[in-house]
Amino acid sequence: MESIIKPILFALPGSETLATHLRAVLPCVAGDMQIHQFPDGESCPRFLTPVVGRDVVFVCAFDRPDEKMMGLYLAACVARELGARSIGFVIPYLPYMRQDAVFNEGEGITSVHFAKLISSCCDWLVTVDPHLHRHHALSDIYSIASRVVHAAPEISKWVSEHVKRPIIIGPDSESEQWVAEVARAANCPYTVLQKIRSGDRMVEVSIPDTTAWVGMTPVLVDDIVSTARTMAVAAKQIVAAHRLSPICIAVHPLFAGDAYDTLQMAGVERIISCNTIQHETNQINLCKPIAVAVEALLKENRENKVQPVQPVP
Amino acid sequence: MESIIKPILFALPGSETLATHLRAVLPCVAGDMQIHQFPDGESCPRFLTPVVGRDVVFVCAFDRPDEKMMGLYLAACVARELGARSIGFVIPYLPYMRQDAVFNEGEGITSVHFAKLISSCCDWLVTVDPHLHRHHALSDIYSIASRVVHAAPEISKWVSEHVKRPIIIGPDSESEQWVAEVARAANCPYTVLQKIRSGDRMVEVSIPDTTAWVGMTPVLVDDIVSTARTMAVAAKQIVAAHRLSPICIAVHPLFAGDAYDTLQMAGVERIISCNTIQHETNQINLCKPIAVAVEALLKENRENKVQPVQPVP
Repeated sequence: MESIIKPILFALPGSETLATHLRAVLPCVAGDMQIHQFPDGESCPRFLTPVVGRDVVFVCAFDRPDEKMMGLYLAACVARELGARSIGFVIPYLPYMRQDAVFNEGEGITSVHFAKLISSCCDWLVTVDPHLHRHHALSDIYSIASRVVHAAPEISKWVSEHVKRPIIIGPDSESEQWVAEVARAANCPYTVLQKIRSGDRMVEVSIPDTTAWVGMTPVLVDDIVSTARTMAVAAKQIVAAHRLSPICIAVHPLFAGDAYDTLQMAGVERIISCNTIQHETNQINLCKPIAVAVEALLKENRENKVQPVQPVP
Repeated sequence: MESIIKPILFALPGSETLATHLRAVLPCVAGDMQIHQFPDGESCPRFLTPVVGRDVVFVCAFDRPDEKMMGLYLAACVARELGARSIGFVIPYLPYMRQDAVFNEGEGITSVHFAKLISSCCDWLVTVDPHLHRHHALSDIYSIASRVVHAAPEISKWVSEHVKRPIIIGPDSESEQWVAEVARAANCPYTVLQKIRSGDRMVEVSIPDTTAWVGMTPVLVDDIVSTARTMAVAAKQIVAAHRLSPICIAVHPLFAGDAYDTLQMAGVERIISCNTIQHETNQINLCKPIAVAVEALLKENRENKVQPVQPVP
């Protein structure tokens, strides 16, 4: 029988709140690590909690990935150097997944190169609803073990508990399958808008016939809300057509630049998000399903690393 | 006979001036590449000059390495994906070399991890006077082919041409061998100060007896000038002791934070640097010896990649 020692959980800078929530539901030890920044812009991670022989988990809220990548890469490499038994990443928002094709001549599929870099420095990865479009599974491009957590059940639960007579609305046809899942679990109707792009920054959406919406609360749900343009346009058209202020829910609240202000000024009732990226709108805590995935991967990793006794020939 | 097609030279953002200087002395084609930044902070390199089948050289003035690393990594990966024949890096200032030991418990040797990352995405590397202290050669930690360019000959030349009766001064004993080389080629005397550190930020230096300095121009030379604290203290003490304003020369003008202002206010005559990092003090152009090293590595790479014809058994 194998005695199981608890993993040590470390928060990357800017991921402390997420780590606190995860520690509340995952049997683990809170690790203390600092990433010192030298005046010349180099980073030096330092582990104040010893990691030798231990399973190490890094939690990283991965907005602005280019700024944060070296810190994560070096922290993982140093943990390995110091004798950690295994290295796992909890990256609820997995960046670079949208660059899954060559959209213009001379570009590359950077999702593949990012995956190679992440796969080079850890043993496993847990993430939430990655953008799987042209890649069909994380294992297409990630060479490490991985688990995908779905946000839909927790979103359904939040909607059921907080919204009277909801109607779930997806901003475009790509979201249909996903929005249907949220609506089914929340036991409410749904519809999907048709996005019409005219140029890079112009977005229009078609609003379906909604005479049946009287007395209902529209709940706009999208996975990645980056510039928030699509969601803001959808919200404005819903407001204009029906005098109903929608509730907006984002799985991954990137809110680049002034996106959050833009969305707030679009006549919405409330903006809510899952805690894959730290933001003041975080209301839906995904750490329970994340913890389940982490425990499964830790178990799998332990079992794989226990070498079977070789039979004597 | 092999027909040699010129390499294509691409500048990373912030390295355009360096690339222009290098193109002036290296037979090559100027490449056009853009690194698009998405609103969410992801990067997408795009090659407007086709790279398929070509030798590709990236020039990167590598101050603030954590900010620039993803751009360089992705550019190299995409060039490879698009069919480049070989990938070379010209990184005149090689970062992370000073973290060549564990200085505090819980830290790691990040120079090794940085070297692994660079080695994973290119075939060869040219750099200028890397900080080789506990690592004795780049090949100790870099698995790719590399060439080191020495700045001393070009510094000697600049001193000979611009300074009347120079005396070369090294700020600490570590610099002795290097300062002696500059002085020998410039055919002038040299001396080395003794650095006395008392705590993290307090630095004092001992000034040698310098009655012989009358009528001479002190020239302070150091390899990496980051916070400029050591050089500023040395300059101030030379000014106080001898009423002589030194000329300061940096190989790698990092000038972190307000370092440049600090040094300017230390009573110095002029501040001069080599162009390993783009800075207004760049006066000593190292691109000629860099071009020689690049050509040698391109030749070596071509020879290694030409597979000998297998003898028929």
